[in-house]
Amino acid sequence: MSKLFFRFAAMNAGKSTALLQTAHNYEERGMKVRIFTAAHDSRAGTGVIASRLGLQRQAETFGLSTVFDSAWLAGTAAGEPGQRIACVLIDEAQFLTPDQVRQLHRLAHQHPVPVVAYGLRSDFRGDAFPGSAALLTLADDLEEMKTICACGRKASMNLRLDGGGCRVQQGEQVMIGGNESYRAVCPTCFYSDSAERRRAPGLFA
Amino acid sequence: MSKLFFRFAAMNAGKSTALLQTAHNYEERGMKVRIFTAAHDSRAGTGVIASRLGLQRQAETFGLSTVFDSAWLAGTAAGEPGQRIACVLIDEAQFLTPDQVRQLHRLAHQHPVPVVAYGLRSDFRGDAFPGSAALLTLADDLEEMKTICACGRKASMNLRLDGGGCRVQQGEQVMIGGNESYRAVCPTCFYSDSAERRRAPGLFA
Amino acid sequence: MSKLFFRFAAMNAGKSTALLQTAHNYEERGMKVRIFTAAHDSRAGTGVIASRLGLQRQAETFGLSTVFDSAWLAGTAAGEPGQRIACVLIDEAQFLTPDQVRQLHRLAHQHPVPVVAYGLRSDFRGDAFPGSAALLTLADDLEEMKTICACGRKASMNLRLDGGGCRVQQGEQVMIGGNESYRAVCPTCFYSDSAERRRAPGLFA
Amino acid sequence: MSKLFFRFAAMNAGKSTALLQTAHNYEERGMKVRIFTAAHDSRAGTGVIASRLGLQRQAETFGLSTVFDSAWLAGTAAGEPGQRIACVLIDEAQFLTPDQVRQLHRLAHQHPVPVVAYGLRSDFRGDAFPGSAALLTLADDLEEMKTICACGRKASMNLRLDGGGCRVQQGEQVMIGGNESYRAVCPTCFYSDSAERRRAPGLFA
Repeated sequence: MSKLFFRFAAMNAGKSTALLQTAHNYEERGMKVRIFTAAHDSRAGTGVIASRLGLQRQAETFGLSTVFDSAWLAGTAAGEPGQRIACVLIDEAQFLTPDQVRQLHRLAHQHPVPVVAYGLRSDFRGDAFPGSAALLTLADDLEEMKTICACGRKASMNLRLDGGGCRVQQGEQVMIGGNESYRAVCPTCFYSDSAERRRAPGLFA
Repeated sequence: MSKLFFRFAAMNAGKSTALLQTAHNYEERGMKVRIFTAAHDSRAGTGVIASRLGLQRQAETFGLSTVFDSAWLAGTAAGEPGQRIACVLIDEAQFLTPDQVRQLHRLAHQHPVPVVAYGLRSDFRGDAFPGSAALLTLADDLEEMKTICACGRKASMNLRLDGGGCRVQQGEQVMIGGNESYRAVCPTCFYSDSAERRRAPGLFA
Repeated sequence: MSKLFFRFAAMNAGKSTALLQTAHNYEERGMKVRIFTAAHDSRAGTGVIASRLGLQRQAETFGLSTVFDSAWLAGTAAGEPGQRIACVLIDEAQFLTPDQVRQLHRLAHQHPVPVVAYGLRSDFRGDAFPGSAALLTLADDLEEMKTICACGRKASMNLRLDGGGCRVQQGEQVMIGGNESYRAVCPTCFYSDSAERRRAPGLFA
Repeated sequence: MSKLFFRFAAMNAGKSTALLQTAHNYEERGMKVRIFTAAHDSRAGTGVIASRLGLQRQAETFGLSTVFDSAWLAGTAAGEPGQRIACVLIDEAQFLTPDQVRQLHRLAHQHPVPVVAYGLRSDFRGDAFPGSAALLTLADDLEEMKTICACGRKASMNLRLDGGGCRVQQGEQVMIGGNESYRAVCPTCFYSDSAERRRAPGLFA
């Protein structure tokens, strides 16, 4: 039996790079992986995993209707006799549903196929993404990928900034098509949210 | 600034022993800690932290109305001039509310007082306790305390057993006054829930 | 196959308590463990594992001549048909020889018997104990057990103090029969070793 | 004060990629890092850090004569007023001397400059590299970077293979100019070294 791994981080810590490295580690040993990222329109299809270091690669996508069960796993090797899946890698795993996380946990423990999920831990309000909360609750192995705040401390939280670089503290968990941006910060900077200090910490320091 | 730590485990891994050891480590250096456990009736008062190894100790209790804010922290040192709190230790932390977890996270990052919370990760259905989900989302340092399944693997899940030792899969997250019991198991045993196998795995093996 | 675990810490972090808790976790599931501590006179015999919390328990001892090989493991169950060893627990593991660490690593990977070793990481000079260096090099799972410095930071180093409470920086790695004592400190306090400050940091603060 | 981090792994786990990602994380926040790799001829100079994913970058080199002390740190910012070093990153850290590790540990604890070292843990015989043993003994934060054995388990050891793909078990820790190669394996494969099985495990399986 295998394990479900969750590699979590704030924005821009290097999650996609780490996923691409893990895929490479398997493949250079002649093992086959299956790579997923979130579909932006809820339907599974084709996506791209891109790293800020310049690496990128095609991936399958998961949507709300994707079911990661034993039948799915059996189907993965259908056209390729003798080649079982050595590892399932999932980017943007915060967008998994709790049910999908449960399916992946069960899959890893009923088949010899490790699942490694990479995703954000919390949103710009400090609340969990539902997929992340489920992964944090069930994953057999949790590992924080570290990045840094502009103040030099470890960044574990995310700020949302509007088009003018000012912090936004309310709104939907996921925004589509806006011009907001995000910044990874440490909790001390995250909580220094006085009304008179609307610029994001470290932005013009 | 300090950190919020979450030490999580399945049932009977030794969480209370570890809490008592940490308290001892501070106190033998002449530092003062404050220890909490959950009130069983929602009102703060006096409780006991008892370890299965035979150790026990009085603790304060937290209930739904407890607020862990800066005023609370300032108040803790009121009667004892010059003695600040070096650490806040919390047992049964799965019963914290998400708001209380947020207060403790903020407290640790705005004051030099580390908070170490010990608690269960998931309930008998594999769902998070709300306090645990918030701790997993915000804590600066997550550490799993390991215990073992009867099959020899690491136990990370919990089964609920009825008075006859049979597994129960539905019901309230917390039961008061029943004669049910709990058993820590690995995910593989947790998911081996076929209808014809109603006895808990490992129970009579 | 199993794993070799190394739980390391500075002095007085709670290593023996943690070992006794792990033994208890196995035994309350009806599993048999074998517990060792270092013999003070190089010959295996009977020892005691005592925790500063007041717990204690008899243990076997290992000395320079102990060999942890397959024959040894087979012999452990000799008089008890049907009862295999579920776990080997070793206290004061810094006193293992590198060869013994290699034997234990091999044992865990050729038999289904996990080995959990608890010990100091470095001595009062900041140098490794030979057993610890081998454990750090080979163990499949490394976990630091945390304790605190008098300054409030994590303690990972050890000071040796003479009978008058002054720091000693040179001498044998292990002293027998002296009246020296030890203090766990953080690296910043460890390196603040100016000549004019011969009292141990935090001692009279 | 900062910390000394050691990120260790077997061969080909992705250490250089992770170093380049960490450098990028600092630099995109406008912070300056200094990157080192081992000089192959003992003299400091210019080197290259290359990742198997295709990334590469110039780096300074350290040799036996490099001294990482406070004077060195002060010198690093000499020509660039106002720009202090935010992080020191070291690849091939197994080739640091124990004295250099001690200097870096002291540096991180006496100045606000974290040091992140990436390197191999053990050589093809299962023995520590001297630099790695010192890093494992002193680093404030140890993190294993995982890769896999051809058998599917976590690889933590390294095999040396001669030009014909046969395992070599004796020889110098570091060979220069030969045609040997290395393979990361799990301990179970590492110890399955029977005389009649001279091909590396998994090589032709």
